Amino acid sequence: MKLATYDNGARDGCLMLVSRDLTRACAAGIVPTLQAALDHWDEVAPVLEADYRALNRGECDESRPFDPVHCLAPLPRAYQWADGSAYPHHVESVRRARGVPMPERYYDDPLLYQGGSDCFLPPLSVLELADPAWGLDFEAEVAVITSDVAQGADPAHCAQAIRLLMLVNDWSLRELIPAELAKGFGFFQGKPACSASPLAVTPDEAGAAWRDGRLHLPMQVELNGQRFGHVDAGAGMHFPFPRLLAHAARTRRLSAGTVLGGGSVSSPESGSGECCLIERRMRELMEQGAVLTPYLRPGDRIRIEMLDAGGGSVFGAMEQLVVASRGAVKSPPANY
Amino acid sequence: MKLATYDNGARDGCLMLVSRDLTRACAAGIVPTLQAALDHWDEVAPVLEADYRALNRGECDESRPFDPVHCLAPLPRAYQWADGSAYPHHVESVRRARGVPMPERYYDDPLLYQGGSDCFLPPLSVLELADPAWGLDFEAEVAVITSDVAQGADPAHCAQAIRLLMLVNDWSLRELIPAELAKGFGFFQGKPACSASPLAVTPDEAGAAWRDGRLHLPMQVELNGQRFGHVDAGAGMHFPFPRLLAHAARTRRLSAGTVLGGGSVSSPESGSGECCLIERRMRELMEQGAVLTPYLRPGDRIRIEMLDAGGGSVFGAMEQLVVASRGAVKSPPANY
Repeated sequence: MKLATYDNGARDGCLMLVSRDLTRACAAGIVPTLQAALDHWDEVAPVLEADYRALNRGECDESRPFDPVHCLAPLPRAYQWADGSAYPHHVESVRRARGVPMPERYYDDPLLYQGGSDCFLPPLSVLELADPAWGLDFEAEVAVITSDVAQGADPAHCAQAIRLLMLVNDWSLRELIPAELAKGFGFFQGKPACSASPLAVTPDEAGAAWRDGRLHLPMQVELNGQRFGHVDAGAGMHFPFPRLLAHAARTRRLSAGTVLGGGSVSSPESGSGECCLIERRMRELMEQGAVLTPYLRPGDRIRIEMLDAGGGSVFGAMEQLVVASRGAVKSPPANY
Repeated sequence: MKLATYDNGARDGCLMLVSRDLTRACAAGIVPTLQAALDHWDEVAPVLEADYRALNRGECDESRPFDPVHCLAPLPRAYQWADGSAYPHHVESVRRARGVPMPERYYDDPLLYQGGSDCFLPPLSVLELADPAWGLDFEAEVAVITSDVAQGADPAHCAQAIRLLMLVNDWSLRELIPAELAKGFGFFQGKPACSASPLAVTPDEAGAAWRDGRLHLPMQVELNGQRFGHVDAGAGMHFPFPRLLAHAARTRRLSAGTVLGGGSVSSPESGSGECCLIERRMRELMEQGAVLTPYLRPGDRIRIEMLDAGGGSVFGAMEQLVVASRGAVKSPPANY
């Protein structure tokens, strides 16, 4: 089934069912929010599934046309955002750009960081950029949303805890990252709030493309209306989602509503393009001797979507316009 | 006022008011949970304050004896946990132990990491340790809980967003941390879920001890019933909380309910003891040529509390017994 969160003025919005063809939507009456559904998934999901089937048959009296302009992120705020970096080609490109080596045991030991989860931006929101010198980049990712995962759960247990899939744009401030990572404590300022796709969907919505813990569909990225990337999200993914989840759960349990990303989708095949600017920049540097593509500036527009084998949009489209923000919030001087 | 969250079977528990002398408690009728109070603080807090005054005067008919055994963490799950490391003596000790240098701009540029916030453990829970070889340590910290903070807010704005103070035990798995940090993406497995004090309190509960963005009271730590640390949480804190918050908010807003810690309380005065094992171990190594204090093992008990100038417990006591956990959750082999 396909789920969305409409803006109703509340922080967590209102949970909606959206028809498979993205034409109709109706409120999920049984729970008010997606987090509430995840908190009680086993009881709630069968009711939602029945309503979803009725919606698809055109038998939901209270449905209305689906319009993603009303969408918040499926989880406008979440209790956890853990982001893997499971595409070796991406890690190699980024580390080459930063001049640091690959992690020694990269192919055995998943790379994962704790991200900020208190805000996921809506799929059609503007992205406010306070300073273009920060080097704004996007990263188009597939993410999973889980129910509770026990500490020490192995990959097979983790696979069973995957409830939903969605797309994430993991905004990155490339020019802040090297100095931040040099401090040794990982990302903070370099990774502002992510954006999310309009829809979070159960894995069955992807059909046979969801297999071996990966989503085997192309991530489609447009920059300013031009195709930028069309990259298979499955082929280049070294660690499947259940392995990433088991890594995250090794020393602590994961609570329902945990969002875990696979990292910027990436492929070494140059014909497929890229899902972030930094890889394109590194390829330009290697192939043409100079970086030609700038980081994002106000006025740039990014569109991210994934179509299934039949051409249907699995998650709806994320489309963001970068705008200059009003800048810092200043006060009279104080003693801090 | 003093607030607690009682276990009522729900994930977020039930918000309680607790009398200043920690003898009586009553349910906060106006909102069900602490997160709900933080989401609507300006409207809710005056009502809670009036009820709190009545409770302290013995005029709350529905009050009952306060018993911390019913307490969950004040926020059993939170949307953000950001942990600073604002005590130079702690950073120097830990980095010496790991054999890595101080961050180059430590005294100008706050050190802060994104922690996992999907679970805060109750104040009197056992701490399950799957493997003593992980090197379990505690870190006694002061933390603030905020309302919404705008992106780019300066320290004076951030100071106004501090709604509550609490204590946190930031459990750390010392033997996992060096290899994890070497990968460059910060902590994940090395920092399992934190524990929290029974009470979160408004800053006025600390009286004059809450000033210049720091809490000037001694952190009192006992290990197995013996005094381990009695360390002023204000004197050794280089960056005050508003500076840490402004650092966190530089590139993104912080949502209501953000928990931000100051880091393991620490002092170079050897007479005051320590608030974590690793500092004690480094001091032993330097003064006596050998590490004598082991990391925590099943059966060890840690107690953390803070008393005000009049001897009253500001936050109640956190007391945790380390127990061996049942270990990993295994499944039949699968293709991950």
